[in-house]
Amino acid sequence: MSFAKLDAHCHSLSALEHALAILGVDEATVMAPGGGSDRAEAMAALSGMLHRQATDPKLEDWIAEAKEESLDTEQRIAVAEFERSHRNLTCLPAEFIERKMRTGMHSEQLWRKARQTGDWTAFRPALEGVVALMREEAQMRSEALGLKPYDALMEQFDPGNREADITPVFAKLKAFLVDFLPMALEAQERRRAARPVKPLSGNYSVERQKALGLAMMEAVGFDLNHGSLSISDHPFCGGVPSDVRMTTRYRTDEFLPALMGILHETGHGLYEQNLPKAWAHWPSGKARGMSLHESQSLFVEKQIGRNPAFWHHALPHVAEHLDEDWSIDDLLPHVHEIKRGKIRVDADEVTYPLHVILRYELEQDLLSGALEVRDLPEAWDAKMTASLGISTLDDPKNGPMQDVHWPAGAFGYFPSYTLGALMAAQQWAAISATNPAVNDEIAAGDFASVNAWRRDNIWQRGSMGTTPEILHEATGEPLNPAHFIAHLKARYGE
Amino acid sequence: MSFAKLDAHCHSLSALEHALAILGVDEATVMAPGGGSDRAEAMAALSGMLHRQATDPKLEDWIAEAKEESLDTEQRIAVAEFERSHRNLTCLPAEFIERKMRTGMHSEQLWRKARQTGDWTAFRPALEGVVALMREEAQMRSEALGLKPYDALMEQFDPGNREADITPVFAKLKAFLVDFLPMALEAQERRRAARPVKPLSGNYSVERQKALGLAMMEAVGFDLNHGSLSISDHPFCGGVPSDVRMTTRYRTDEFLPALMGILHETGHGLYEQNLPKAWAHWPSGKARGMSLHESQSLFVEKQIGRNPAFWHHALPHVAEHLDEDWSIDDLLPHVHEIKRGKIRVDADEVTYPLHVILRYELEQDLLSGALEVRDLPEAWDAKMTASLGISTLDDPKNGPMQDVHWPAGAFGYFPSYTLGALMAAQQWAAISATNPAVNDEIAAGDFASVNAWRRDNIWQRGSMGTTPEILHEATGEPLNPAHFIAHLKARYGE
Repeated sequence: MSFAKLDAHCHSLSALEHALAILGVDEATVMAPGGGSDRAEAMAALSGMLHRQATDPKLEDWIAEAKEESLDTEQRIAVAEFERSHRNLTCLPAEFIERKMRTGMHSEQLWRKARQTGDWTAFRPALEGVVALMREEAQMRSEALGLKPYDALMEQFDPGNREADITPVFAKLKAFLVDFLPMALEAQERRRAARPVKPLSGNYSVERQKALGLAMMEAVGFDLNHGSLSISDHPFCGGVPSDVRMTTRYRTDEFLPALMGILHETGHGLYEQNLPKAWAHWPSGKARGMSLHESQSLFVEKQIGRNPAFWHHALPHVAEHLDEDWSIDDLLPHVHEIKRGKIRVDADEVTYPLHVILRYELEQDLLSGALEVRDLPEAWDAKMTASLGISTLDDPKNGPMQDVHWPAGAFGYFPSYTLGALMAAQQWAAISATNPAVNDEIAAGDFASVNAWRRDNIWQRGSMGTTPEILHEATGEPLNPAHFIAHLKARYGE
Repeated sequence: MSFAKLDAHCHSLSALEHALAILGVDEATVMAPGGGSDRAEAMAALSGMLHRQATDPKLEDWIAEAKEESLDTEQRIAVAEFERSHRNLTCLPAEFIERKMRTGMHSEQLWRKARQTGDWTAFRPALEGVVALMREEAQMRSEALGLKPYDALMEQFDPGNREADITPVFAKLKAFLVDFLPMALEAQERRRAARPVKPLSGNYSVERQKALGLAMMEAVGFDLNHGSLSISDHPFCGGVPSDVRMTTRYRTDEFLPALMGILHETGHGLYEQNLPKAWAHWPSGKARGMSLHESQSLFVEKQIGRNPAFWHHALPHVAEHLDEDWSIDDLLPHVHEIKRGKIRVDADEVTYPLHVILRYELEQDLLSGALEVRDLPEAWDAKMTASLGISTLDDPKNGPMQDVHWPAGAFGYFPSYTLGALMAAQQWAAISATNPAVNDEIAAGDFASVNAWRRDNIWQRGSMGTTPEILHEATGEPLNPAHFIAHLKARYGE
């Protein structure tokens, strides 16, 4: 039976994915410094095995045969999702994949070097090479999948997300934010004039911060029997669903950066821990995509973690672990701080979408040919000035050279961040609508009903629908920016 | 070119071995408790891939072709060792391997359960099944390799080791030890009567013991850029040569158990770290076998770590890290303590070989049919009584049920332990003969010449010779128990 063959095949792929996931975490957290080059070689070889197995030509026959077999609904969905993922993996010729890997590595290395001094002229030819390649890739994916070129790129990260749905949503959001940002900044200034911000600094050992972090992880539902928290230079959530490896980094003079980072990664971790176990080795049992994943991390970080109700519950833990006695009014100005800035990764929830929409618009133009790399600094600057009121023309390092995505050849990825924020707000709105007491529950440290909704409507769905399907079924409507806008108004308006 | 094909193949096998090694270490040191069953499944699948790749039928052609190619000496050795290892891997039919795995797992599970209460009757049928299987396996390996049955089993663990060479050596050693042990125990008693033993106990935090352990690891040559020390229930040395993962366990009331364990594992680690890097992915670049590996760990633990000269160097470190002010005379009675006992793993360097030789003699008889499992408790007891003066007849839990080796189907492995002790003493004698100042160097914390000899004569040889060849070339003579006997006389005699 070909379904059984596919099932065994998925177990084999899963074992290699498991190894790569744990080796990656080990590299970032435990590996001896001198172990790097052997590790790189081993992981490259295992990735090669994984790719060869995942693209084995016999799979096409097995898929075709399995579709004729008598299967139940979940099995049919599993085969369909396997086919989708297989088509995305195999739609580029090997020659192109090699060329892309070479170009991408070269350009990323050049970017790391040129960014240090903001040397746009040195970096430009590399980015031009990547853009040429991405146009080629988008065209090939478009033909293979029957999607528009940009949609075909997004399909790798968020199946079902379409330019035609996202563009009007982003346009509406941008129009709102450009007006809202100056008002929100003024409101913040007035609040700060009325009540000066108290600094939340002190001396907090890593051990105490970690204990606080673990307490908050457990509070919001993370299962420490199936995961752990350690330290790495760049915080991430890795590992496997049965053993989710979260990391953070600590500074001993402030506790909020690590704690908010932990809450963000906990959101990713909850999603992974609660995926449907019976399908864990099939694509349909894995997390849906980048934007839904980001919606889960932002749900915990922003919808829960920056919600005043949450701090009613959290402050006593902070007091216990850090021996500090702050009021909620001391804390909120910090977790709700907003400001204009050039850098996406430093942005807050009000300004972040403007950074993302700028990249969304520019990468579409770069792909279509409406924009050439040589004109990128001016185009970037014009959009930054219009939306955030900041010029980056004389500072390319903090302009179009700030992100690794484009030099690494990831086009169609940026929208995931803001789609995640929108979907998190939409999920929160759906929960609030069915459970008006949700803030009281959270203030009491009770996350059971919030997590039950998310488990049923998001986590347990795995990849058994497209991103828009899962969102629509969960919330009763398609992507709707009104919820995020209402959220920002309530939190950052007058 | 088939040599190049084999080279690429070895890289691929190495990547899977790398993954399995790191996943194994991760499981013992970092993995979340609930991650175990997924980890077991992933590792089983990866082991299956490794076995299928390692036994791929096309390899026979590649080996045959490579032997006809124009190769340099190291390449020729590499192909020959690949062939040897491949023949050992493929000489059993798949049907037998499956049967052995099933029987072995069942018998090991039964052993774990029955050992708790020492229920020999419950355990006996399982061991009978294993013995029947081992007779069959020894016969098949014997025919495939052209070796005597017991030699064919040892060949997996220590290529080149032969019953005909070992039996007279063990007989001589046993004869010596049976006489020597009572004398050594009396000598110890007289010393203790003259100078009462001072207990070395206190309260030593894990952090301080770890710092002391790391200092001693580095002192004897361990490269912390290519390895690390962590904690696990059962101390081991794992990982890969570029990133050797050592573990230990600590008790806070005593420091010697952890430190001696660390020195033992450091011996394994030094061997792994100093194997020939250019051949790391070929069998010829890997550690030779169990007995030579054990000779390296026992070299550091016994020849260095229990050598009074070492403690001249080590005691100031102990004083610094543990804040204790012991003299070398306080310390030596502890590191040189000997006593009769039933348990192999608790034995000291004088009694340990008697435990091993007993098992060596019994497993030969079990294999040949001269002994049946039903008669094992009596046979064990007779030998224990004759060599160690202890009866185990009413205590099978601490008699023939104490080790995992037989229930797990590892016959031919036990001699490695004592061969390691003999070879360590023989290596030490060879070093002392060429460098009479070796004890002064060690007392001064200078391990350079000792390690240079070991690097040239053992570590860098990898598997480019059989175990007896490497020993002979390193020390100028075949296995000779006189060195170990002289060592014991000097350390434990009058």
